[in-house]
Amino acid sequence: MLFHVRMEVNLPPAMPAAEAAALKQVEKEQAQALQRAGKWRHLWRVAGQYANVSLFDVESVDELHQLVSTLPLFPYMTIEVTPLCRHPSSIRDDDR
Amino acid sequence: MLFHVRMEVNLPPAMPAAEAAALKQVEKEQAQALQRAGKWRHLWRVAGQYANVSLFDVESVDELHQLVSTLPLFPYMTIEVTPLCRHPSSIRDDDR
Amino acid sequence: MLFHVRMEVNLPPAMPAAEAAALKQVEKEQAQALQRAGKWRHLWRVAGQYANVSLFDVESVDELHQLVSTLPLFPYMTIEVTPLCRHPSSIRDDDR
Amino acid sequence: MLFHVRMEVNLPPAMPAAEAAALKQVEKEQAQALQRAGKWRHLWRVAGQYANVSLFDVESVDELHQLVSTLPLFPYMTIEVTPLCRHPSSIRDDDR
Amino acid sequence: MLFHVRMEVNLPPAMPAAEAAALKQVEKEQAQALQRAGKWRHLWRVAGQYANVSLFDVESVDELHQLVSTLPLFPYMTIEVTPLCRHPSSIRDDDR
Amino acid sequence: MLFHVRMEVNLPPAMPAAEAAALKQVEKEQAQALQRAGKWRHLWRVAGQYANVSLFDVESVDELHQLVSTLPLFPYMTIEVTPLCRHPSSIRDDDR
Amino acid sequence: MLFHVRMEVNLPPAMPAAEAAALKQVEKEQAQALQRAGKWRHLWRVAGQYANVSLFDVESVDELHQLVSTLPLFPYMTIEVTPLCRHPSSIRDDDR
Amino acid sequence: MLFHVRMEVNLPPAMPAAEAAALKQVEKEQAQALQRAGKWRHLWRVAGQYANVSLFDVESVDELHQLVSTLPLFPYMTIEVTPLCRHPSSIRDDDR
Amino acid sequence: MLFHVRMEVNLPPAMPAAEAAALKQVEKEQAQALQRAGKWRHLWRVAGQYANVSLFDVESVDELHQLVSTLPLFPYMTIEVTPLCRHPSSIRDDDR
Amino acid sequence: MLFHVRMEVNLPPAMPAAEAAALKQVEKEQAQALQRAGKWRHLWRVAGQYANVSLFDVESVDELHQLVSTLPLFPYMTIEVTPLCRHPSSIRDDDR
Repeated sequence: MLFHVRMEVNLPPAMPAAEAAALKQVEKEQAQALQRAGKWRHLWRVAGQYANVSLFDVESVDELHQLVSTLPLFPYMTIEVTPLCRHPSSIRDDDR
Repeated sequence: MLFHVRMEVNLPPAMPAAEAAALKQVEKEQAQALQRAGKWRHLWRVAGQYANVSLFDVESVDELHQLVSTLPLFPYMTIEVTPLCRHPSSIRDDDR
Repeated sequence: MLFHVRMEVNLPPAMPAAEAAALKQVEKEQAQALQRAGKWRHLWRVAGQYANVSLFDVESVDELHQLVSTLPLFPYMTIEVTPLCRHPSSIRDDDR
Repeated sequence: MLFHVRMEVNLPPAMPAAEAAALKQVEKEQAQALQRAGKWRHLWRVAGQYANVSLFDVESVDELHQLVSTLPLFPYMTIEVTPLCRHPSSIRDDDR
Repeated sequence: MLFHVRMEVNLPPAMPAAEAAALKQVEKEQAQALQRAGKWRHLWRVAGQYANVSLFDVESVDELHQLVSTLPLFPYMTIEVTPLCRHPSSIRDDDR
Repeated sequence: MLFHVRMEVNLPPAMPAAEAAALKQVEKEQAQALQRAGKWRHLWRVAGQYANVSLFDVESVDELHQLVSTLPLFPYMTIEVTPLCRHPSSIRDDDR
Repeated sequence: MLFHVRMEVNLPPAMPAAEAAALKQVEKEQAQALQRAGKWRHLWRVAGQYANVSLFDVESVDELHQLVSTLPLFPYMTIEVTPLCRHPSSIRDDDR
Repeated sequence: MLFHVRMEVNLPPAMPAAEAAALKQVEKEQAQALQRAGKWRHLWRVAGQYANVSLFDVESVDELHQLVSTLPLFPYMTIEVTPLCRHPSSIRDDDR
Repeated sequence: MLFHVRMEVNLPPAMPAAEAAALKQVEKEQAQALQRAGKWRHLWRVAGQYANVSLFDVESVDELHQLVSTLPLFPYMTIEVTPLCRHPSSIRDDDR
Repeated sequence: MLFHVRMEVNLPPAMPAAEAAALKQVEKEQAQALQRAGKWRHLWRVAGQYANVSLFDVESVDELHQLVSTLPLFPYMTIEVTPLCRHPSSIRDDDR
């Protein structure tokens, strides 16, 4: 199942640079592992913002929440989840 | 270049059913032609709404507007365009 | 899987009373059949509004959209879907 | 009487981890006690957010406020309360 | 129990004046009967708007919805309900 | 003259508990004095929120601002003022 | 007492031009009479919009509502009222 | 003086195609005359919308309103005006 | 030229009282000098808020920005500027 | 390709003045270099706000994001990007 996820990051200005860098590094590793596992299907940067638009492909809502809520930047993100389904005008049965 | 496009359709309640069906049929044909041409990369239905989330892959903003504004349902749609770019954590150089 | 669905109904003032009554009658029958089937788990009226808050229990997002988008009042409703999952403080493994 | 309650938690980034953990532990105990008492009928996590959707079943608005405002996380939550009532299409007289 | 209710009226411009006048007359009679019965405790006009702020004093949420949703102008009103309770700084045990 | 006032309190998380308690104590005393003087006609808690809905009965807008802006919690409140007047369907000439 | 009033006009597209012109003519006459009477202290057009910003100087909220709600365009306007009072940095005791 | 103007067009669905075409033709002629006169400095289409972003260069706010409010599509447009001035980091004294 | 300016002040809770008092004193002096110069035509307090509604009468947008952006509280204010012009129903050619 | 970019700056009140001045100096230098390179076509101050409206002229969305996200004030800005294209009523083929 596909879920459209918009994540916007707001790190507190007072966070030390080293702490921010460490968080971002782990975030990147987890994001890449999830992409390789086929769970995080697409990951794009929103132009001009510290935000992304992503497509997740998961077995259940619980799995989605488990993946997203354990990202290191989760406490600093505003996240919106939109469930998607097949569009009748799509030329693909399984557009992911 | 990739653009995230959200389209929400609001047909006037007074539109005759045959007129609506004809518009939707042409809309579907154009959407499928654009998908086959690789311009309209993804097309998903937003669950519970007469709306879609789409990804367009075009040469320029002018081409994007040309494609979207000539859809038969364009006069009845509320459309939001968000430019996307490569995310530094993406595992693909060319995620489309 | 559980989805929280808020539906707000806006019938056009010009709709003849008999047409509205017929739509509502079929809507009620479909809603009750889905409740008996266990798909539409809860259905509450929002006090003071022509709106409801509902819980759907479905196999997939596609099933959810199929059920909701074939309701007779669908063209006249503003619908918001929120995916839900197990809360770590819930005392039930399967709160539906 | 049923009330739909949406709670969103925003802990200050500067709160020490031990203090946050202690607050959450007491919050969980109170939430579970209220669930066992039948006052907090449903408790679901909103996917992708540090937020929940809950159903409270109380004798009065005063009881609802008493229960919610004494939660340890109350000072850190944005809360919206929506009163619910029986829906004419519900198949149950007492849907809770 | 007290509920704060804000009602905003939007009659369709095409409604014949006689029909609007008849609706308003019945609305007024019902509103006054509910005031005399002590259910509709306060009714104030919002300055500069076709809107009111009201206080209802009812036994239950169901009773509130029953009273409000059977007003003749209900189909033309946008209504917001806010449950109220005793304030700890109130000098009255029963401020209605 | 009647004014509908909605006050929402947001104390900074870093404020020492003793300072907050002292502010609230003086706030309560001023609120009760104004109620006894007939200036602050009604004071209700909004269920589930650190907020109130109040009715002020004052001689002028200047008096209203004088009373509200000298409350000790004023610097920490978001306040909305709505002027009210007699509703033509009210059964009372002087509903306060 | 001074009230800041913002009025935005939305005439239905289907209104005959003669009817609109007649409404506007009476509106203008009433607005000018109120200005001459000192009740409507200022009347400015918002650049680029069919809207105005006005200052009313009235004895009471009831008088304000009486003046505004009897304007011929009242049913077609969205109106916001903001009560104003003396600013401590004003150099005038009676800035109107 | 420079003003940033955003115009969004909403023609009523019931407007006959010939009437719409005539309005748009006159609109285009006026827009081009104003561009040639140097008053309407820039005119861009917002991608995916029946909307434009424009820069006007006028002598006064009154002139701006006079130019915009006499466009044939004015009654069908939602318009927002933002006054602009020289930016201290601009490399041009007169960026128009 | 006239501009409607709404200013809302938000001083950080951590600002020392003496610093705030000094800022406000200089702000007051500048505001009064601008009033005496005829640039800041009106200055009213919004009832119940640490905010004002003002009318500026300036030669250009650049002058307006120069005056407003050099106020000592400028870094702590949320400001909205609305350009105004003569209203056709005004009885004065030069309503300031 | 043209992109309309609105940038609003919010520096944390606790930032030392020297740090803010240094950031702004580098920001200014980068902004001026980009203007001289023809990438940052227009840069205007929004009157009364610490904000600007800009026009960027770039080869791709990626280039736009690269330019904007490496500005020293980027972490402190709220940025909105709107893609623009040729307007059919423009008198210029290449309005930049």
